[in-house]
Amino acid sequence: MVNFKGHALPGTLFIILSLWWSTRSILKYVCKKQKQTFYLRSKALFHRVELLEGTIVVGMALTGMIAEQFIPRGPHLILYKEGKWNKLLSWHHFTMYFFFGLMGVAHILCVTIRSLPSSLPKLMLSNALFVEAFIFHNHTHGREMVEIFVHQLLVLVIFLTGLVTFMEFLLQNNVLLELLRSSLILLQGSWFFQIDSVLYSPSGAPTWNLKDHENIMFLTICFCWHYAVSFVIIGVNYAFVTW
Amino acid sequence: MVNFKGHALPGTLFIILSLWWSTRSILKYVCKKQKQTFYLRSKALFHRVELLEGTIVVGMALTGMIAEQFIPRGPHLILYKEGKWNKLLSWHHFTMYFFFGLMGVAHILCVTIRSLPSSLPKLMLSNALFVEAFIFHNHTHGREMVEIFVHQLLVLVIFLTGLVTFMEFLLQNNVLLELLRSSLILLQGSWFFQIDSVLYSPSGAPTWNLKDHENIMFLTICFCWHYAVSFVIIGVNYAFVTW
Amino acid sequence: MVNFKGHALPGTLFIILSLWWSTRSILKYVCKKQKQTFYLRSKALFHRVELLEGTIVVGMALTGMIAEQFIPRGPHLILYKEGKWNKLLSWHHFTMYFFFGLMGVAHILCVTIRSLPSSLPKLMLSNALFVEAFIFHNHTHGREMVEIFVHQLLVLVIFLTGLVTFMEFLLQNNVLLELLRSSLILLQGSWFFQIDSVLYSPSGAPTWNLKDHENIMFLTICFCWHYAVSFVIIGVNYAFVTW
Amino acid sequence: MVNFKGHALPGTLFIILSLWWSTRSILKYVCKKQKQTFYLRSKALFHRVELLEGTIVVGMALTGMIAEQFIPRGPHLILYKEGKWNKLLSWHHFTMYFFFGLMGVAHILCVTIRSLPSSLPKLMLSNALFVEAFIFHNHTHGREMVEIFVHQLLVLVIFLTGLVTFMEFLLQNNVLLELLRSSLILLQGSWFFQIDSVLYSPSGAPTWNLKDHENIMFLTICFCWHYAVSFVIIGVNYAFVTW
Repeated sequence: MVNFKGHALPGTLFIILSLWWSTRSILKYVCKKQKQTFYLRSKALFHRVELLEGTIVVGMALTGMIAEQFIPRGPHLILYKEGKWNKLLSWHHFTMYFFFGLMGVAHILCVTIRSLPSSLPKLMLSNALFVEAFIFHNHTHGREMVEIFVHQLLVLVIFLTGLVTFMEFLLQNNVLLELLRSSLILLQGSWFFQIDSVLYSPSGAPTWNLKDHENIMFLTICFCWHYAVSFVIIGVNYAFVTW
Repeated sequence: MVNFKGHALPGTLFIILSLWWSTRSILKYVCKKQKQTFYLRSKALFHRVELLEGTIVVGMALTGMIAEQFIPRGPHLILYKEGKWNKLLSWHHFTMYFFFGLMGVAHILCVTIRSLPSSLPKLMLSNALFVEAFIFHNHTHGREMVEIFVHQLLVLVIFLTGLVTFMEFLLQNNVLLELLRSSLILLQGSWFFQIDSVLYSPSGAPTWNLKDHENIMFLTICFCWHYAVSFVIIGVNYAFVTW
Repeated sequence: MVNFKGHALPGTLFIILSLWWSTRSILKYVCKKQKQTFYLRSKALFHRVELLEGTIVVGMALTGMIAEQFIPRGPHLILYKEGKWNKLLSWHHFTMYFFFGLMGVAHILCVTIRSLPSSLPKLMLSNALFVEAFIFHNHTHGREMVEIFVHQLLVLVIFLTGLVTFMEFLLQNNVLLELLRSSLILLQGSWFFQIDSVLYSPSGAPTWNLKDHENIMFLTICFCWHYAVSFVIIGVNYAFVTW
Repeated sequence: MVNFKGHALPGTLFIILSLWWSTRSILKYVCKKQKQTFYLRSKALFHRVELLEGTIVVGMALTGMIAEQFIPRGPHLILYKEGKWNKLLSWHHFTMYFFFGLMGVAHILCVTIRSLPSSLPKLMLSNALFVEAFIFHNHTHGREMVEIFVHQLLVLVIFLTGLVTFMEFLLQNNVLLELLRSSLILLQGSWFFQIDSVLYSPSGAPTWNLKDHENIMFLTICFCWHYAVSFVIIGVNYAFVTW
């Protein structure tokens, strides 16, 4: 993951997830406000769609796990080699993907087995996010100031997303919390791309000065702008769906 | 913003907002306790007033944004100049005003479009406050001890206001939470003036010694006194409105 | 307050308050479980008792404020003298007492004026506790390690009490939360006496070694034992009242 | 406790508790979904089982307390000897066991005395966990980096368990929160064994290098894997019980 593609892959996945989740939340909210009959029909549809969603999430997680293990310079499933740990950073990413996979599995189980509590996937999503935040928090030992800062912001947004998801788990059916979660996940996705542009330049141009505090001052507001843009995108999505 | 007027402007805006919001909350609370008929009539009035409020908030935010950009030593919309970032502190303030503007826009949309959830403006306000706290937290790199301390207190009060607003968003119609938020915003406004008097003296007299720890000890209780005064003002306002 | 009596006064006040509040909570809980008629009669009694309570709290706070100002080495209401702040630590304590006084005033107002929300005193109590924690947090600059540690524990318990009180404000009528608050306040009171015995010995014997880390290790469990004792006292009180 | 057995004892106790609690929660949840008659009969059974549970918890805590005091190198109930504190670390563990014992006592009281609020044991459990986290937080002064890190992770999981238990106390009858608590306690138990294998090797082989940061990087994901395994075990338990 320590190159451009490594950050672009999860960034893309999160952006897709966010757009999908926001669309689904808005649709559900609008459907509920409409007539009951239409709602009932759509309920059966939602059921099938959720099954598909679970499968796709599991697929995404598997893709990420396999990519982390079998890229040319990956660990190839070897954890300990020649008296020291082997490519631990890849194993970190592997673990993160694994927990998102668990969430997908919980989603599928919940849709197929009726007796399971329906809020299980929310709990597993919040768990996956907290685990991700925890791993990223212990991920950047010994790096440069700006690199640590951009990862700290990532931890912040992931932790907040986990918190919002946990609230959703406790208070069901609050459409604004769902949209807030979507926009935070969108922010996470776009921030992965920002990290990419700070640390690696695809064109091979010189990257940013990682020791300059001015860059931290700029990235602070850059982060807020990403957030504002993610709000606007969710808003446009809302307008589009209701229309 | 790095002068007397720069802190006096947001201070004044927050004090006005706080007084207005507390008056509105108290009026709403008192009206609800009175007869239903009167309440219904006032509901239509509230509707129009809220539209006006949203417009005024957007106006305030625009004023702040334009003032930050086009004051004599402002960035004039140029972000990057001559190989380095241009006046990032002004851009910080610009971003804060922008999020309050977003909140105003959400307020207007929510009043005009019925299908939107009615708690959206609360969520956007809490977002704007969290963003403000986040930016102020990364705002004071390399300054003197006392200057950092007064800004940390500012971050504390803004963060708490954001938290209270978020609770309001979750638990609707709790008049005491609304008044608590108003008093915290009043505290924020008056603290801006306190920062002003610590850092810049309008008369040109020597400012405070920014390296003396005794000043921190004093500002700790000064902060509490501001808070007590803001409570008293909200209380007087309550007495005045009910009377 | 920087002597034995200065810590014994608030310690005693908090212990009295705690015992009184726990007794009242248990009585209320037991009365509710008994017959309705008896409950109604006791309701009128509670009303009068609450008025008395508010007055006593205001009286306690006034005593504390006056004692802090007019003890022989107190500030005598002079804040700034000879170019520097005058006895800021006493002013700190003065401010803490003041906020508890505000709570008492809110209590009285709430009992006399019916239209006020009944949870106002809870909010003011939680405010007073948060302000106390905030001031204590900024109170121990430049002292010895063990002295800072015992004050940090004090801040911890005050902050937790504030949090529990805020929860009570949001979720009314949870008897266990009320008893938890009482036991935390009892812990605070007894901890004041522990601080006394660590820092000042009434007999003039040598005090503890404030630089020895072993003392911190001991005070950690000592704090827990105080907590256990406060639980047991509340439990005995419960048994006594129900009997 | 500073040897292999000292960590294996609480580890085993927590694993047993976790498996028992998860089984009970699942049974209760499944019974509730089944017919009412069956539920009523099982209610009487639950009553007797809870009494047994309380007794066992008290027994476990007493075992731990006695073991801590009277192992060959324990303090033998002597707190202060020859001018300094005597074996404070053992006293720390003693205090932790004591609070779990308090929880067991509360459990027994709650089952036998009907008038007590039924959520008291939850509150006491959350208290015991917070006290445990607090003591562990002040437990590792002056040790090696990796040793501090594994104990910090322990503090993290204990604190989170306390938080989840407190939420359970506030929001009763949420089966997922109960299972989350069980899995966190399982994680705590298995993490005790992990600490054992890091610090002491039963075979006398050389232990880990406690100064190598790579080990911290590995333990980060190792912690997550323990968590994933605890999830899977709870899941298998669920499948087993429902079947």
